[in-house]
Order: sequence, then C-alpha cells, then structure tokens
Amino acid sequence: MPDHALTGGPEARLAERYRDAAPATAVWNPVIDLLVQHRSVRSYTSDPLPPGTLATLVAAAQSAATSSNLQTWSVLAVEDADRRARLSALANNQRHIREAPLFLVWLADLSRAARLGQAAGRELDVLPFLETFLVAVIDAALAAQNAVTAAESLGLGTVYIGAMRNHPEAVAAELALPPGVMAVFGLCVGHANPDAPASVKPRLPQPVVLYREQYGAVAEADGIAAYDATLREFQAEQNMAQQGWSELILNRLGPVSAMSGRDTLRAAIERLGFGLR
Amino acid sequence: MPDHALTGGPEARLAERYRDAAPATAVWNPVIDLLVQHRSVRSYTSDPLPPGTLATLVAAAQSAATSSNLQTWSVLAVEDADRRARLSALANNQRHIREAPLFLVWLADLSRAARLGQAAGRELDVLPFLETFLVAVIDAALAAQNAVTAAESLGLGTVYIGAMRNHPEAVAAELALPPGVMAVFGLCVGHANPDAPASVKPRLPQPVVLYREQYGAVAEADGIAAYDATLREFQAEQNMAQQGWSELILNRLGPVSAMSGRDTLRAAIERLGFGLR
Repeated sequence: MPDHALTGGPEARLAERYRDAAPATAVWNPVIDLLVQHRSVRSYTSDPLPPGTLATLVAAAQSAATSSNLQTWSVLAVEDADRRARLSALANNQRHIREAPLFLVWLADLSRAARLGQAAGRELDVLPFLETFLVAVIDAALAAQNAVTAAESLGLGTVYIGAMRNHPEAVAAELALPPGVMAVFGLCVGHANPDAPASVKPRLPQPVVLYREQYGAVAEADGIAAYDATLREFQAEQNMAQQGWSELILNRLGPVSAMSGRDTLRAAIERLGFGLR
Repeated sequence: MPDHALTGGPEARLAERYRDAAPATAVWNPVIDLLVQHRSVRSYTSDPLPPGTLATLVAAAQSAATSSNLQTWSVLAVEDADRRARLSALANNQRHIREAPLFLVWLADLSRAARLGQAAGRELDVLPFLETFLVAVIDAALAAQNAVTAAESLGLGTVYIGAMRNHPEAVAAELALPPGVMAVFGLCVGHANPDAPASVKPRLPQPVVLYREQYGAVAEADGIAAYDATLREFQAEQNMAQQGWSELILNRLGPVSAMSGRDTLRAAIERLGFGLR
C-alpha cells in the first residue's frame, strides 16, 4: 500500500474527488480509500519495478471477469527502451511512455480463438461480429483496470494511453500483431516522479452520472455548471490553462480535427482483421 | 474486507487461480489478495445493502481513469423488484438479476455531450465515430471494474451481465434511455448466498496471454492443452458438466446461433443513436 493510503478519512478523500459536491457516504475501507485516490501519473523516475511485479499485475488482470470465460484479450509487456520510444512516437510523443520502465499494451485478441478453430478445422462464424470485438475490448478494459489497482496498491503510478489508437496499424506492425489482434490502449507503469506529483482530478457530481430506475437528466445543467467552476479552480491550483468541462466537451468532441486521426479507426480495425459485422 | 481476505498466502491464491500453472511472484499485499480472489456470484440473499454503499461504488467508479476526462458513461441503479424482473426477462431470465438487491446498468453515454452541444448551438462532429463509441464503452468498463473491486472489498458479491446486449432496444425502452445512450452491460450487487458459494475459476496460464516485446504464440498449444485439463478438473470438483476451454471456444464462437441474438447488435446500436462511422 502506498504511503498516502490510510491518512485522511472518507470525507477528505471525497472532498478531493468531488470538491463541494462530495456525497455523504457511510461505507469505507482501505481498498476504497486506494481506489478513490487514483491519479494518472505522467512523470516517472527510471527506477525499475520490483521483481515479480509483472506476474502480479497479470494475475490481477486475469482475475477480472471475462465474458463466458472466453478470455479474448492478451497483454504485451514492452520494456525495451527503443521500442518504447518508437511507440511514443506513434502516440503524440508522450514522454511518459519513454520514461516509465514498463509499458503494457492491452490487446483485443480474437486470434487465439481463430488458431484453435483452424487447428480443429472448425469455422468460427461468431468472430467477425461487432459484438465479439466489443467483448474483447470490454474484457481487456476490465483486466487492465485490475492491473491499475494492483499497481497503485504497490505504490506504483500508471496512465492509460488511448493514443495507441492514433496509428493502430503502425502499432500492430511494431508489436508483430497477427490478424485479429488490436492494441486497445497502452498503460505506463512505473514509480511516480516525486518532483512532479500528480493530483486527484475532480469528477462530475454524482447526480450528473448516476440515475435511479430510469434515465432522466433533470439536475444536469446545474451540476455541470458547478463542475465547470470546480475544474477551473483545480486547474488554477495546478497552474494549468483553465477550461471548464463544457468547453472541454465542445472542443474535444466538436471538430474531427481533434481526433488525432482516429476518425479512420473503423477502417483500420477492419484491416487488422476484425469483422465488425 | 471480506472474511476470506488475508488468509492463505500468495502461493495458495495463485494456485487457486492457476492450479499447476501458478507463476512465482514476489509482490503481494491485501489489495492484490482481494483482486486475485474475485469470483462471479450467481446466487444472492435478499439482504439489503448497507446505507451509503451505492455512493461509495459510484465514487470508486468515477475515480477510474476516463479518456481526456470526457466522462462519456453513466450508471443506472435499479432496485425496484419489478423492473429487475423485467430486465431479467430480457437477459435469458438470469435469476440473480431478480435476487440481488441492486442491479447497476453501465451506460455508454454520448447524450450528455450532445445536450451540451445543443445548448451551445455547436455541432459535435466527433460524436458519430466508432472511436467515440469505443471510448464510452471502455470508460464504462474501467469504471465498473472499480465498482466491482469496491463491492468485493466490502464483502459483497457481483456478476457482470453481458446479456443486457441481447435486446438492447427493449432494455433502452425499459430504462427510458435517450438517443446516444446504450446499456453496455449490467452488474448484480448483493450478499452472496452462503449456501451456494462461488469458486475462483482457473484462468489460462500466463504464458498464453502475456507476451514480451512482440506478439508470438509459441508456447500456446501446450498451455491451452494444460488449461483444458485444469478446467475439466475444476468443473468435476464443482459438479458441473465438463468442457475444456478449447471446446468452449469452438462452441461459443462457432455458430451464430450461440450469440443469443447479438448478431444484430451493430444495427441496434446504430438505431440507438450511435454513428459507428
């Protein structure tokens, strides 16, 4: 467990995550304390990971649920510095991919099943459907999130790299992925740089994302307006450029130019051997 | 923390998860101990959840990473018994949806952004892309997995319900989902029935799912053959019908009739208002 666990109480933790919009809550323990303290780490030391770390992260990942036990995901551990540099170049040159000693690439992997089908001489008609691709993506995400929790429990930092989808075919070539395998996202794992500590980012108030019984966006506008102010307050504290959440949404989801090339992802996924039927 | 935490050691835990294929690992702590003990619970008591549980699960979920802080997911808490029964009827009549006091439906939600765009009079050209849908699905999965870990840390049981995708439009109607919102999966949360305890299911050996530096399926066939035997051993212990993993894959991914209707999912997702471009 990291040093910062078990200090502060639920109220302090929830105030960090939600600022003025913290819910009152009655249940807490050290695991929840850890989860609620998550922060994405974008600056790492070059210290290596303790021996056995990778096996533990993978054991945690494999312990996550997987649809019908199909296990349609794999994970690729990249430690080679040159390969990390090349992957960084394919991901907007994000520095932390070069810095962190371990880069995990989480793979939607239908090729294992395809190999079994081929060996058995059986057609696997379910493979080329969007549903099957989604199962692989979802199960990779559940697995990865368990690895994140395990890493953070060991005092390590992580950050997801969605930019593995910026140039999916170049990533596949770098990693020698066969047809039916795609990098869903990456994950840097390492020791956070103590000179550039990451902070807990505030999230939308619970009433904006949590519905009861049926969907209904009644209290949404006020909640988002409050969150816009909260984010600006957080950014000011962090000496970051200020941008409310509403602006973020309009900027990131407005022009296709904000997609870093991912507007062509569907065609790339199909070329990587997924049917998406 | 549940009673079964902190008993046994890493060796015992990994032997439960991997049987003869357990990796040697050097790092362990109570959080990892909890993660590796995950089991899907399919029988629940009717005991209600402690007050504050839902807020805690949502706080854990919102603390997971979310792509560019877009928060394109929501969660819908269903406690009403009649609604749970109707959702169960849409999900192969799975009994545990009726039994567990809380059913969480995890939503890919682009409608919140769409409402912001509309209020601002701005076109959100990024919304109708497959990439955007995937971000929503992935972020919903990361969030849900944190909720699972939080629930298990409180001694509660969970099981994911992928069958929310069997009849996605009927589910959307039941939950009054607006366009741009889809139930990705459900999650039962409750107290495990002590008379029908769930077991840790063995997973594929690590060398089958973990690659180093580049993909290469060298040791795969032996690992899968060993796992086929392991699963049969597990099923025999559980008085379940025996089926190796290879057979499972061929049966579940072979005929389209095994998809429970999800072969039409892509068209349904499009009708629910996602572009998938």
